[in-house]
Amino acid sequence: MQTFLSKKARSITPYVPGEQLNSNDIIKLNTNENPYCASKKVFEAVKDNLDANLKKYPKPDGGDFRQAAANFVGVDKKNIFCGNGSDEVLAFAFQAFFDPDKNLSMPEITYSFYPVWADLYDIPIKRIPLNEDFSINEKDYFDSEAVIIANPNAPTGVALSKEKIRAILDNNAYCVVIIDEAYIEFGAESVVGLIGEYKNLLVVRTLSKSQSLAGIRAGFAIGDEALIDGLNRIKDSFNSYPINKLTSVAAAAALNDKEYYNDINNKIIKTRTWTTDKLTKLGFKVINSKTNFVFASHDKMHAKEIYSTLKENNILVRWFNNEKIDNYLRISIGTDDEMKKLINFLTSIL
Amino acid sequence: MQTFLSKKARSITPYVPGEQLNSNDIIKLNTNENPYCASKKVFEAVKDNLDANLKKYPKPDGGDFRQAAANFVGVDKKNIFCGNGSDEVLAFAFQAFFDPDKNLSMPEITYSFYPVWADLYDIPIKRIPLNEDFSINEKDYFDSEAVIIANPNAPTGVALSKEKIRAILDNNAYCVVIIDEAYIEFGAESVVGLIGEYKNLLVVRTLSKSQSLAGIRAGFAIGDEALIDGLNRIKDSFNSYPINKLTSVAAAAALNDKEYYNDINNKIIKTRTWTTDKLTKLGFKVINSKTNFVFASHDKMHAKEIYSTLKENNILVRWFNNEKIDNYLRISIGTDDEMKKLINFLTSIL
Repeated sequence: MQTFLSKKARSITPYVPGEQLNSNDIIKLNTNENPYCASKKVFEAVKDNLDANLKKYPKPDGGDFRQAAANFVGVDKKNIFCGNGSDEVLAFAFQAFFDPDKNLSMPEITYSFYPVWADLYDIPIKRIPLNEDFSINEKDYFDSEAVIIANPNAPTGVALSKEKIRAILDNNAYCVVIIDEAYIEFGAESVVGLIGEYKNLLVVRTLSKSQSLAGIRAGFAIGDEALIDGLNRIKDSFNSYPINKLTSVAAAAALNDKEYYNDINNKIIKTRTWTTDKLTKLGFKVINSKTNFVFASHDKMHAKEIYSTLKENNILVRWFNNEKIDNYLRISIGTDDEMKKLINFLTSIL
Repeated sequence: MQTFLSKKARSITPYVPGEQLNSNDIIKLNTNENPYCASKKVFEAVKDNLDANLKKYPKPDGGDFRQAAANFVGVDKKNIFCGNGSDEVLAFAFQAFFDPDKNLSMPEITYSFYPVWADLYDIPIKRIPLNEDFSINEKDYFDSEAVIIANPNAPTGVALSKEKIRAILDNNAYCVVIIDEAYIEFGAESVVGLIGEYKNLLVVRTLSKSQSLAGIRAGFAIGDEALIDGLNRIKDSFNSYPINKLTSVAAAAALNDKEYYNDINNKIIKTRTWTTDKLTKLGFKVINSKTNFVFASHDKMHAKEIYSTLKENNILVRWFNNEKIDNYLRISIGTDDEMKKLINFLTSIL
């Protein structure tokens, strides 16, 4: 059939994102979006930039977004690389730092896009099992050929301490270690502060979760200038201007409004505690989460069945067709009201 | 030095985009942007979509943009693939349709990003010389292993007729033929109408030139459903949501306002005629352009010298460091006023 496709296009198994059913009737707890609206300053910034200037190409480096990201994490602009979502940043990073003749170590259970990028760029994977409690044993990553770890990990929500990541860095002086901090602002400890000490550390962030801007597509990486240069080399061989002007000003405005986001993200953390408590009382085993989702399993009803029943009743959560975790649900933390509806419904079916 | 970079990142030679000096003092005629502002409807559409919905991920297929692109070129939505600029669409297309064991035929002088993508994905190139007058000899592309042609070609501005492209398609039943129509709306004949007849034809468009939206990053491809599926396979293995929500509504609004864009693009065509006439009178050899730029050479003063002198005087045009064309300048068509200033200045130095 697909006679016109390249061997690569035929051989890969693309990533399957969470369903995007955006009906108002649906309680959407399946893609870890922030339940609260983005800062009003984001909208103002976009409005202020709707002018004739849109006819010109954006700055190739992301413009205002890059400087705001630097300020946000407390590094120099030269240590920042901006992308069209952290997915794009990660895709570039796989090409910039990983090779087909070196194994990339990653947790056996992690963000399911990692194996897809590895496949796209012919990078072999060393899948490392998690501990029984879904935690990462840092020693398993010592003396690797390449490392990527989501911290906190997805879809488990489990965080790894800064000191354990430091140990991984200390024992991997010759390869790049990527720490994907997509969910870091929901309670885990960032390693951005280690950038100056470890020239092989790349930290990746997104504005899709903690900045309520999944619809804007903005992510960035923090690292030594040589790593940023590597990302730019790939970017400039792929798409010179991946960040459009509106994303640039929106992302900058969001990153500059720390106060607003601290408020809403603290609210999410409180709701997570409430949800964890209620789920536990309903008989769920809930993994200790440092993210804006919880990972939970029930011994009386299979996760797939709960997922389907919820879906039939317009509550969307994420279930993964992966035998290691197929009795778990990943439930994004929504508003208090949404979580109450979820808990009420679960109470009625369990 | 770059010990942490992959072999690929070290070996490639990235694309170098035209300088983005956005000072108001500069007459910027170097990156073929449209000198006229985007439609007001674009700004209205963006304003109308600045709401809480930005916290949710966009539709993976580009949303409204996809339908508007389908309407714009008169095909079904299923024949459209949307990307973050036509550069991203082309990057995906190289991976989706070209293989490392097949030569990709392209004009020796063409968009200088093509060889960069080929290099990124290990695709060997067969560079085919142009005729003396910079036109393409269609027979040179018969029985190829893969084909990409910009029509009109860049940076020459020379168009290839629909019938000659049909001949290329008739003589390449077994490989994909990409026709990059970035500049098609400035006077050349599109082959979008041939999509139904040739399942191996992919046409690529951008909104950066004729829709005055270089700052928005929007491009799309038109082709048989199987080709669109191939692009989606690569896209979904790279970045599931490359089109942010604001780009989607902006692009849709622009494509839906044909009347406005016909007006400004007709103005540009008139200005191109005026500019060509004036340059010719100044002793330039000007290649017959069907784009929003002209490609010109002067026998009394070397192009590089003219480029530098113009730049020192805040007029930016494009000069290519490529021996085949290094006595030519590519000059974007600006407003009448900008072109008068250019002509006046050239008159003073020649």
